Amino acid sequence: MEVPEKFHFESERRVEFADTDMAGIVHFANFFRFVESAEHAFFRALGWSVHSAQGDKHKGWPRVSVSCDFFRPARYQDILKIRLRIEEIGNSTFRYRFFVFGPGGSDSRPIASGRFTTLYVELNRATGEMRKCAIPPRLRKLLENAL
Amino acid sequence: MEVPEKFHFESERRVEFADTDMAGIVHFANFFRFVESAEHAFFRALGWSVHSAQGDKHKGWPRVSVSCDFFRPARYQDILKIRLRIEEIGNSTFRYRFFVFGPGGSDSRPIASGRFTTLYVELNRATGEMRKCAIPPRLRKLLENAL
Amino acid sequence: MEVPEKFHFESERRVEFADTDMAGIVHFANFFRFVESAEHAFFRALGWSVHSAQGDKHKGWPRVSVSCDFFRPARYQDILKIRLRIEEIGNSTFRYRFFVFGPGGSDSRPIASGRFTTLYVELNRATGEMRKCAIPPRLRKLLENAL
Amino acid sequence: MEVPEKFHFESERRVEFADTDMAGIVHFANFFRFVESAEHAFFRALGWSVHSAQGDKHKGWPRVSVSCDFFRPARYQDILKIRLRIEEIGNSTFRYRFFVFGPGGSDSRPIASGRFTTLYVELNRATGEMRKCAIPPRLRKLLENAL
Repeated sequence: MEVPEKFHFESERRVEFADTDMAGIVHFANFFRFVESAEHAFFRALGWSVHSAQGDKHKGWPRVSVSCDFFRPARYQDILKIRLRIEEIGNSTFRYRFFVFGPGGSDSRPIASGRFTTLYVELNRATGEMRKCAIPPRLRKLLENAL
Repeated sequence: MEVPEKFHFESERRVEFADTDMAGIVHFANFFRFVESAEHAFFRALGWSVHSAQGDKHKGWPRVSVSCDFFRPARYQDILKIRLRIEEIGNSTFRYRFFVFGPGGSDSRPIASGRFTTLYVELNRATGEMRKCAIPPRLRKLLENAL
Repeated sequence: MEVPEKFHFESERRVEFADTDMAGIVHFANFFRFVESAEHAFFRALGWSVHSAQGDKHKGWPRVSVSCDFFRPARYQDILKIRLRIEEIGNSTFRYRFFVFGPGGSDSRPIASGRFTTLYVELNRATGEMRKCAIPPRLRKLLENAL
Repeated sequence: MEVPEKFHFESERRVEFADTDMAGIVHFANFFRFVESAEHAFFRALGWSVHSAQGDKHKGWPRVSVSCDFFRPARYQDILKIRLRIEEIGNSTFRYRFFVFGPGGSDSRPIASGRFTTLYVELNRATGEMRKCAIPPRLRKLLENAL
């Protein structure tokens, strides 16, 4: 697998006991939580709050499509590095690749990698309806500056 | 431990792989999710929806106090029986004991038991403020009929 | 999206309160838990136990690659149908597509769908090493009969 | 509620999106994960690994009894401080109180507090049997030094 040389964000986390399953390794679904947290840390670092609400209206980023390939397991207390690389900043869509590095791999061999495609929407919590919105100009600028 | 002879509700669930941890048993925090689901099934069986929202106002049942004693572990694929026994229906407060039965125990030896005290509130999602509310008369009647 | 006419397994589950997030919908990572549980129910229906352990040796099915597209949100108390369609039974690899149906969609419009590729391995819990194994003939037969 | 003046350990964590539920606040069961992580950070700070395995034998700390009172909700992105105060170091038992502090409270008003009683055991992963063990002298010394 070819790993990019440049990333747009990196965050770190330690695997917790409750992240593991009876096979003794991190349950695969938790990698998605880890990546989401890295994404949110990225937005926070940009000075942008990921979710905002006003009455019934909730602005947020539901996922349109996610994927992950798993190369090596992560284990309790491992310190993982999650690196993000932006692929596309569309009108409403934000897409990035992620690479998870850990003790079982090396800087050129991630233990997992994949892609998130996420959409900027207004969610009506009363009705459950979602309506996609244009990424606000200020946020677009912040994201483009990060490239 | 003395187990009551009569319960007000029982529900069943099978332990899932993701409920376990690297010790090969159900992670203790998941018992609280299991009990909550049994509680919600109880409310559903009464014909009452646990959570309702209108605009910023969310009516719900945050927990005031919970406890659990663990006697025997639960394992992957175990079928657990969760039995509830109402202890008090206060003005805004609802309190019950729970007993979790599974393959590692018997009908007189639960694998876990504890207590939930929960409060009927109106939560303002915009401000985060909670205000306790009187349990509505119709719900009170439904709960009292279940005794 | 084209939905297959025939599936090899279907299971049902109700969305629990703890499956939701502050956007008021099921957190996307939980769909992977739901699909895994459907997969395990499929194996159980075949009469095959998904995980077995002997000493340090744990036989199981870590995920090699997973993906999910999300079309419509799922909400608290929704009853979801998860349908599996086997795509490939390799030497050590098992791959299937899944389709999640719920109140927000219809039988021809799933609310989510994706693919799991999973590998039969022997995991050494002491060292963390994984070694892929051939799918046992009896299990292969059970899977092929399900087609 | 009287809050102790002295604690034996403090750790910090930021609430993640996946920690919240549809009421817009941290799901109560996640507080137990938070406290467990603080406990493990405490052991790590002492230089002691919480879980160790050798073949079928897993040494660990299943919970005997846990409780939590909830005073104020925690919300997405809140930074929580979790403070531990040891209450008893028994032959096999370790018991502590915890206090969770967050933006909704103050240093004298925790948002949640409770107690964990945990037991040092040897778990046979093959049979599921647990046998309590004496806390090893070196660990006992480390814990007593922390008082």
